[in-house]
Amino acid sequence: MSTGKINVSVENIFPLIKKFLYSDHEIFLRELVSNATDATLKLKHLTSIGEAKTEYGNPIIEIKIDKEGKKLHIIDQGLGMTADEVEKYINQVAFSGAEEFLDKYKDSAKDAGIIGHFGLGFYSAFMVAEKVEIITKSFKDEPAAHWTCDGSPEFTLEAHTKTDRGTEIILHIAEDSLEFLEEFKIRELLTKYNKFMPIPIKFGTKKEALPKPENAGDDYKPEYIDVDNFINNTNPAWTKQPSDLKDEDYKSFYRELYPMQFEEPLFNIHLNVDYPFNLTGILYFPKLAADLQIQKDKIQLYQNQVFVTDNVEGIVPEFLMMLKGVVDSPDIPLNVSRSYLQADGNVKKISNYITRKVADKLKSLFNENREDFEAKWNDIKVVLEYGMLSEPKFYEKAGDFVLYPTTDNKYYTLAELKEAITANQTDKDGKLVVLYASDKDAQHSYIDIAKEKGYEVLLLDSPIVSHLIQKLEADNENLTFARVDADHIDKLIKKEDEQISKLSEEEKEKLKTTLETIVPKENYTVQLEALDSTSSPFIITQPEFMRRMKEMSQTGGGGMFGMGNFPEMYNLVVNSNSELATTILNADESAQKELVKNALDLAKLSQGLLKGEELTAFVKRSFETLK
Amino acid sequence: MSTGKINVSVENIFPLIKKFLYSDHEIFLRELVSNATDATLKLKHLTSIGEAKTEYGNPIIEIKIDKEGKKLHIIDQGLGMTADEVEKYINQVAFSGAEEFLDKYKDSAKDAGIIGHFGLGFYSAFMVAEKVEIITKSFKDEPAAHWTCDGSPEFTLEAHTKTDRGTEIILHIAEDSLEFLEEFKIRELLTKYNKFMPIPIKFGTKKEALPKPENAGDDYKPEYIDVDNFINNTNPAWTKQPSDLKDEDYKSFYRELYPMQFEEPLFNIHLNVDYPFNLTGILYFPKLAADLQIQKDKIQLYQNQVFVTDNVEGIVPEFLMMLKGVVDSPDIPLNVSRSYLQADGNVKKISNYITRKVADKLKSLFNENREDFEAKWNDIKVVLEYGMLSEPKFYEKAGDFVLYPTTDNKYYTLAELKEAITANQTDKDGKLVVLYASDKDAQHSYIDIAKEKGYEVLLLDSPIVSHLIQKLEADNENLTFARVDADHIDKLIKKEDEQISKLSEEEKEKLKTTLETIVPKENYTVQLEALDSTSSPFIITQPEFMRRMKEMSQTGGGGMFGMGNFPEMYNLVVNSNSELATTILNADESAQKELVKNALDLAKLSQGLLKGEELTAFVKRSFETLK
Repeated sequence: MSTGKINVSVENIFPLIKKFLYSDHEIFLRELVSNATDATLKLKHLTSIGEAKTEYGNPIIEIKIDKEGKKLHIIDQGLGMTADEVEKYINQVAFSGAEEFLDKYKDSAKDAGIIGHFGLGFYSAFMVAEKVEIITKSFKDEPAAHWTCDGSPEFTLEAHTKTDRGTEIILHIAEDSLEFLEEFKIRELLTKYNKFMPIPIKFGTKKEALPKPENAGDDYKPEYIDVDNFINNTNPAWTKQPSDLKDEDYKSFYRELYPMQFEEPLFNIHLNVDYPFNLTGILYFPKLAADLQIQKDKIQLYQNQVFVTDNVEGIVPEFLMMLKGVVDSPDIPLNVSRSYLQADGNVKKISNYITRKVADKLKSLFNENREDFEAKWNDIKVVLEYGMLSEPKFYEKAGDFVLYPTTDNKYYTLAELKEAITANQTDKDGKLVVLYASDKDAQHSYIDIAKEKGYEVLLLDSPIVSHLIQKLEADNENLTFARVDADHIDKLIKKEDEQISKLSEEEKEKLKTTLETIVPKENYTVQLEALDSTSSPFIITQPEFMRRMKEMSQTGGGGMFGMGNFPEMYNLVVNSNSELATTILNADESAQKELVKNALDLAKLSQGLLKGEELTAFVKRSFETLK
Repeated sequence: MSTGKINVSVENIFPLIKKFLYSDHEIFLRELVSNATDATLKLKHLTSIGEAKTEYGNPIIEIKIDKEGKKLHIIDQGLGMTADEVEKYINQVAFSGAEEFLDKYKDSAKDAGIIGHFGLGFYSAFMVAEKVEIITKSFKDEPAAHWTCDGSPEFTLEAHTKTDRGTEIILHIAEDSLEFLEEFKIRELLTKYNKFMPIPIKFGTKKEALPKPENAGDDYKPEYIDVDNFINNTNPAWTKQPSDLKDEDYKSFYRELYPMQFEEPLFNIHLNVDYPFNLTGILYFPKLAADLQIQKDKIQLYQNQVFVTDNVEGIVPEFLMMLKGVVDSPDIPLNVSRSYLQADGNVKKISNYITRKVADKLKSLFNENREDFEAKWNDIKVVLEYGMLSEPKFYEKAGDFVLYPTTDNKYYTLAELKEAITANQTDKDGKLVVLYASDKDAQHSYIDIAKEKGYEVLLLDSPIVSHLIQKLEADNENLTFARVDADHIDKLIKKEDEQISKLSEEEKEKLKTTLETIVPKENYTVQLEALDSTSSPFIITQPEFMRRMKEMSQTGGGGMFGMGNFPEMYNLVVNSNSELATTILNADESAQKELVKNALDLAKLSQGLLKGEELTAFVKRSFETLK
C-alpha cells in the first residue's frame, strides 16, 4: 500500500479558470473592484487600530479605459502589497487573502465590511485579458512591485518606481473580449455590480456648470468644467438605520434602484437583523396595476453592498417575489444548488423572517392608517392572497389586515364581515352566506337583486380567489361563499318564509312542460320558482360548486382533475309568479315560442351569453321594433 | 527581476471543487456515468482496431445503492486502469484522459462518441461524498488497484483482488447529501441526464410476467420474475438516419421524451448536419392549443447523448422556443455567458440552420398535403407569425406557406388572397383593402355586413397580429388592412357609386344637431352617412389607425409610446337613409330622446359596449315590453 497527495497542476487549472469557472465573463470587473474595495477597507481598519502609520485620507477607486493600448486599469489607494506579499497572495491561485485577514483580525475587523470571496477573484481577470500587470506600492516602507503574467502561467516580478500607495491592475484585453474596452459596457457593468459599494468609484468625467456669478447679465452663458464622475452611492439607504430615514428617503432610493420606474412604490419594509444571521434590506410593494416592468425590475441580492443576482428564488418566499427592492446578506451561500438552498436551515430562517416582517408591517400599516391601506388594497391583494394560500405562517397573521371589499367600496376584515352580515345573511340552517361577485359589470343585474334584499356583495376578482374561498370555508365552520349568479337570490340564502305561488300545481306543471319543449335542454335546466312578482321573470344561474371547481382546476392546483374542460352548465330560473309567466301560460303555441325565445335572449344578455349570430339577430329584430 | 511559475495548491482548490465549481451538486452522477460510458467506448474502440486483445462482449454500467452502508456504486465493464494509470489520471486534478485519448487516436476515434469534458468530472464526486473509493482492473494483464481518498487530499493506493475487467466507483455519501441514497432520487437523476446514453445502464430490477404456458387453464395466475431494469434507450431516434424512421417512430420517441404529454405532436423536423458544425436532433411542433405543459416540456440540449440543459436560449431561435424535442451537438460551448453565445459565429450558424430547416419543412408540408396543413394552422400560426416578425430570413420564406384564414374557414396564401379579392375589394383610389376580424363572435354583425357585400373577411386573432399587419402593409405597396368595425363598410372600401341621400341637406343638418344633443360627445363622434336604406340605422365604429397603434403599444414594441393608455374613441355612424332616421327627424323632442337612446343601446350591444348598469336597465325595460 502506498499513500500520496493528490496533485493539481497549474497548467490544467488555468484553462479551467479562464473558460469555465464563471459562466459570466463580465463578473471579472466585479471581482477586481471588490478586491480594490477590500484593499481600501483593510487599510482603513489598520489605520483605525493604529497598526498602519499612514494617513487614510479619502481614498477612491478609479477605472480607466485605454482604448488605443487595449488596456483597462483598475486603480486603488488601499494598503498595497510588497513584493513578498505579491509572491504570497498572487502567485498562489485560490489563496484567499481576505479570509486570512479576517482570521488575523477576528475581533476587531468583524464589521469592517470586507467582502472576500474564494480567493479566485483576481484570476477571473484572465477570462478577458491575455496579459495582466500589477503595479503595487504597500503602505509599508518598501519599494513598489511590478508583476506581469501572460497567463502562461509563468510570471515576472520586478521593482517599480510607483511611489503613491495602492494597487493598479492593468488588463491587456484579449481579442475576443474587446467589448470590455467600450465605455458604455464598462459603465453598464459598474452600474450593475458596483452601484452601492462603500468606496467611491471614479469612471471618467462629466460636464458640470459653474455657478452663475452674481453680477451676470441676461446674456450670461453658463461655463462648463469637467468634474470627476462617480459611479456609486457609498451609503445606500438599506445600510442606514430606519430611524434615520424619512419616507422621502425611501422613495428616492427606490428611484435610484429602478430609474425606469415612474410609479412610486406603495410602501416599504426595512429589513434589519443581526442574529442568528446577518441581513439588511428594503422591500417595496410596487403599484402592480400600472407596472409593466414587473418581470424586469426584480428584488436584487447583495453581499456586503456588491450586487450578486436578481434571482432571489428560495431566499425570498415565493409570494413576495413580485415585490421590489434589495436584500443584503453575507450569510447566503452562493453557487449552490436550489435544492441545497431549500434545505439549508439558515436560508429557511431568512425566508421565514422576511415573511414575518412583511406581515408585521402590513398589520401596522393597517392599524396606523386604515383609509390609506384600503386605498392601496387593489394593488397589494394578489400578493397577500397568494401568501395566504402558500405560507401557513402568513395565513395565521392575515386575519389582522386582509380585507374583503364590497361592490360598494366598503372594506371589511373577515371578523368584521361576519359580524356585519350575521343578522341578515344567516340562512334557515344556520349557515352564514357570504355573497360575492367577480365582475361588477358582467354580474351587474345579479348584484342589483342581492342589494335590493339588503345583502352585502363582496367584489373578489383576483384570479386565485376560488382557491382562497375554498380555504376560508374549510377553516371557518358554518361559513359558505356563493357567487351572486350561482342561483336565484332566495335560494342562495334560504329563509323560512316561503313565497306563495300564484299558479296552481297543475299550471306550474304545464308551464314547465311548455318551457322545456322550447328551451334547449343540453344547455339549460329549467327550474320553476315562486318568487316575488316584481322579480325578474327569467334569470340564468350557474351552480357554485361546479363553477368553482372548474376555476380552481383552470388556475392550477386543486379542483378536480380535468374539470377545466367540462362544458358550462346553467340553470334557467323562471319566476312562476311573474306576469310574463302567466302571459306565456295563456298564449297560443306560436306566441309562447316567441315569448320564451325573447325572454331567454334577455336572460342570456344579463349573463353575457348572447353572442355572435344570436346577438346580431336580436339587435336586428330590436331595430325593427324601434322604427 | 525574477520569474517564476504561478502555484496552485490542492488544499485551496479542493474546497472550491466541492462547493463552488458546479452550481448543481446533482450533476456528479452525470459526470461519473459519462466517465463509465467513455471507459466502455474506449475499450470498444481499442478492440475494434485490435489494440485490446479482450472480448468486448455486451458491457453494461450498473448503479447500486447501499443504503445501510451509505454508499453509492457506479460499476462499469470498460477498459479499467492499472495502478500506474490511476496515479496518472486520478491523482492529477483536472487532467483530461478523454482529451489525451482523442489526441492519441485522432484519426480512428473521431466517431467513437467519447464524451470527455474538462477532466474535472471525477472530482465532482466530492461534492456529495466524504470518501471515494476506486476499485479498477485494467483489460491489460496487470493486478487490480484500489484507490481511496477522504477528500483530505491524501490518498492511499493498494492492490485489489478484483479480477473482472472494469472500474467500480464507491461514493461514501456525506451527511448533507443523504438524499442521493434514495432510490427515487437516483432514478430521477438517471432519467434526467442519462436516458439516452449509448451504453446500457442497469438500476435495480423490475417484475416481469413469464409467458403464459400453452396448456395453462382458466385459473392460470401469471408467474413473475425479477429482471434487470435498464434506464436508457441506447439508440434514441435522433441518432438514426431520417430514412430509417417512420412517422410512428417519431411519435413514439416524442412519448419517450415527454411521458406526461398526452397530445401527439403535429409534425417533426429531423435535424442532421455535419459541416461546418456537428448537430443532430428532432424538433416537434406541439399542439399548442391543448398544451398546458408549455413551459415545462422544453427543447432539451444534449452533447453526445448526455443531457445538458433544457435552456436553449441563444441556440434555438427565439420564435422556435415553443417547440419541443432535442438538439445534440458537441460543438456548442457550455458554461459561457449569454452574450458570448450570441456573438459566437458557430452558434449563430446553428440558429440560422435551424430556422432554414424549419422553413423548408413547413414548405414541404404545405406542398405535400395542403388540407392537413390548413387543419394544423391554428396550432402553429403564433409560432410562424412571431417568426415572421423576428427573423428576416424566415419572413423571406414565409410567403410560401403562411396562411390567412377567412371567417368562413377558407385559407389563402398572401398571393392567393390578393388575387381572390382584387376584383371586388380594390377601392376607387386603387388600394387593395383586406378586411379582417379579430373575434368572430364579438364582431359578428360587422362581419355579416361585409359578407353581404361579397367581401372576404379574414380571421386574424393572434395577439401579435397588429404588428404583422403593419409589416405586411409596409412591404406590399397599395395593400391596406382594415378591421370590419373600423368604419361603415362603404367607407372601408370606397367605390365610385355614391348613395343618393333621401334627406335634404337641411334635414341632414337638423338630424345631426338633434343626435349630437342626445349622444354623449365625449365618447362618440356622430357621423351621418347616406347608406342603403336596409343597412343598419346606427352602428358604432372604431378607426383602424388608433386602435392598431393602441394594440401594438399594448403587446409591446412598436405603436406609439404611452398610447396603450389612451381612452377608446368611437364613431357613431347613423344611416340617414334608414327609416329610423326619418322617424327620429319627425318625432317630438321626448320621443326623439327615447328613440336615439334605444338605438344607441342597440348599436352598443353590437359592439360589446353595453355593460353593467346600462345593460341591466336595458334588459329590465325589454322584459317590460315583453309581457
